[in-house]
Amino acid sequence: MTIEVVKLNLFIDRLIQAIESKNSRICVGLDPHLNHLPDHLIEQEKVGKAENRDDYLQRMAQVIVEFNKEIINQVAPYTAVVKPQMAFYEQLGLPGLEALQATVTAAKEAGLLVILDGKRNDIGSSAAGYQLAYLMKDYSKSKEFQAGFFQVDALTINPYLGWEGIKPFLVNEESGVFALLRTSNPGAAELQGVSLASGEKYYQFLGEKLQEWGKDYLGNAGYSNLGAVVGATCPEELVQLREALPRVFFLIPGYGAQGGGAVDVVGGFDGNLRGGIVNSARSIIFAYQQKNWRDKYKPKDFALAAGEAALQMRDDINLALSASEGER
Amino acid sequence: MTIEVVKLNLFIDRLIQAIESKNSRICVGLDPHLNHLPDHLIEQEKVGKAENRDDYLQRMAQVIVEFNKEIINQVAPYTAVVKPQMAFYEQLGLPGLEALQATVTAAKEAGLLVILDGKRNDIGSSAAGYQLAYLMKDYSKSKEFQAGFFQVDALTINPYLGWEGIKPFLVNEESGVFALLRTSNPGAAELQGVSLASGEKYYQFLGEKLQEWGKDYLGNAGYSNLGAVVGATCPEELVQLREALPRVFFLIPGYGAQGGGAVDVVGGFDGNLRGGIVNSARSIIFAYQQKNWRDKYKPKDFALAAGEAALQMRDDINLALSASEGER
Repeated sequence: MTIEVVKLNLFIDRLIQAIESKNSRICVGLDPHLNHLPDHLIEQEKVGKAENRDDYLQRMAQVIVEFNKEIINQVAPYTAVVKPQMAFYEQLGLPGLEALQATVTAAKEAGLLVILDGKRNDIGSSAAGYQLAYLMKDYSKSKEFQAGFFQVDALTINPYLGWEGIKPFLVNEESGVFALLRTSNPGAAELQGVSLASGEKYYQFLGEKLQEWGKDYLGNAGYSNLGAVVGATCPEELVQLREALPRVFFLIPGYGAQGGGAVDVVGGFDGNLRGGIVNSARSIIFAYQQKNWRDKYKPKDFALAAGEAALQMRDDINLALSASEGER
Repeated sequence: MTIEVVKLNLFIDRLIQAIESKNSRICVGLDPHLNHLPDHLIEQEKVGKAENRDDYLQRMAQVIVEFNKEIINQVAPYTAVVKPQMAFYEQLGLPGLEALQATVTAAKEAGLLVILDGKRNDIGSSAAGYQLAYLMKDYSKSKEFQAGFFQVDALTINPYLGWEGIKPFLVNEESGVFALLRTSNPGAAELQGVSLASGEKYYQFLGEKLQEWGKDYLGNAGYSNLGAVVGATCPEELVQLREALPRVFFLIPGYGAQGGGAVDVVGGFDGNLRGGIVNSARSIIFAYQQKNWRDKYKPKDFALAAGEAALQMRDDINLALSASEGER
């Protein structure tokens, strides 16, 4: 009789390792806006011939799968991580979730880590249900096959329910979560930046809680499996939070189409060029529609445009980080 | 040529009408905890013979559908509303979401309103995607069949992203949302009850924002399509918030198994016995396992037990409301 010792890899260490092996601090958002998908794929799946709602959903879901697979193959050399935004899949109902599953599979096959952007949140057995659905990997040990269906590497969560709504997501150290802290939307500060009696802003207070709650989930690099979402659109808060929260890894959305640039995200990183990944969706996956790319790439070459945009974003961020290193 | 004038019914007015026609201020939570489902249904679907994960998920999902259908039929006379908690369905992957769809259909056929407890949240096109997935009903007008897949009456949302994360959920006046305000979990106050520089608690500040944001979505009874979640486990806050927020309808969870009783929820209602619905899941749907019911009902009669528990909860709340009316 042998006792099998399974050495699990902490999510956060795998993430850092993947980032460094590709020297890329970007994350490609797989947000397939239906109105921006290339015409030739829409035509190929004969979406216009859909006879009813379910037929339409099936065809659009297939367009998404084909779109994502091409994108994944082209961006894989330049990114360690992709982040599908779940709403874009859920809006197509069950066919959309099948497309999500196919997308996750394609990303794993390309060796990429997957962060599902679902912003899930609940307490107790409900939170445990979401954890199971998206993050649980060791189903083979369960005789009841209470398996993770999607088995991705990380999930975004909304922390407003408190620690009882966060802890259930951390039971499997192979996976991590990123809790919304300071989001990238223009109106985010109204609820997130309100001043507390203590003198802090709400997001500062919440950030300290996240760091405290994450202390039992630290990896070798000193970062925790409990990360946070901090927008590229608020560079001052990013600097402030990086300084205050040395154990909290940041997922930084809002780069590109939402307005954040390479210089804006520098503050999210530590002196070892660690501590963050910067997400962009539209500016990469729909690069083929943008002024600076559309002369070079035809719609059929949307994935090549995405690859070049990912490469450029990777280099822009690394360059900005090097420049800021020089200044320190 | 005729011009069709469609008079839409505001969600909140339909809700109030449904509540008053049944004289029931309860909401039955359809939270099918896998460990509490009756053995005879598990055996009937031969869950123990599942050969792999997907087979297991299919069988368990079928158990849930049968369980829910029986529950729905028995509680329908005593409740106007059911609230499936999405995590319990999502944890079974795609088969689980098929079970959710079947559950929603069964509830509609029984004439019940459906609030999906998904606590979704995002901004812009992502929030619009969730709205489409769960709330959009008028798909027949869209030539692209961008249809709501689930087409329920309301959805719970998490408001932490601010107004930009709430507004997209309100575009269809036939459906409503309930934003998390003061939740029922024991640790909720840590993030929700923090004191602001203004002297208010965070949930008071947020409640006022919700009331302000909801003012363009008022129904005939003066309540808004933008409601709020306030736990039965914090009766003092419930009284305070009902007084401060006369336009915000409350979804009140935490009754029964979580500790709230009929007397605790009275404060959530206005002088017309309006302004709230009280949710209970376990105490109703798993009544057959509880001390006070299990001598009377065999596991096979779980749905009859649920019906009686729903009737009793309805009456307990109405009685407590009458008693408190007398005191006013």
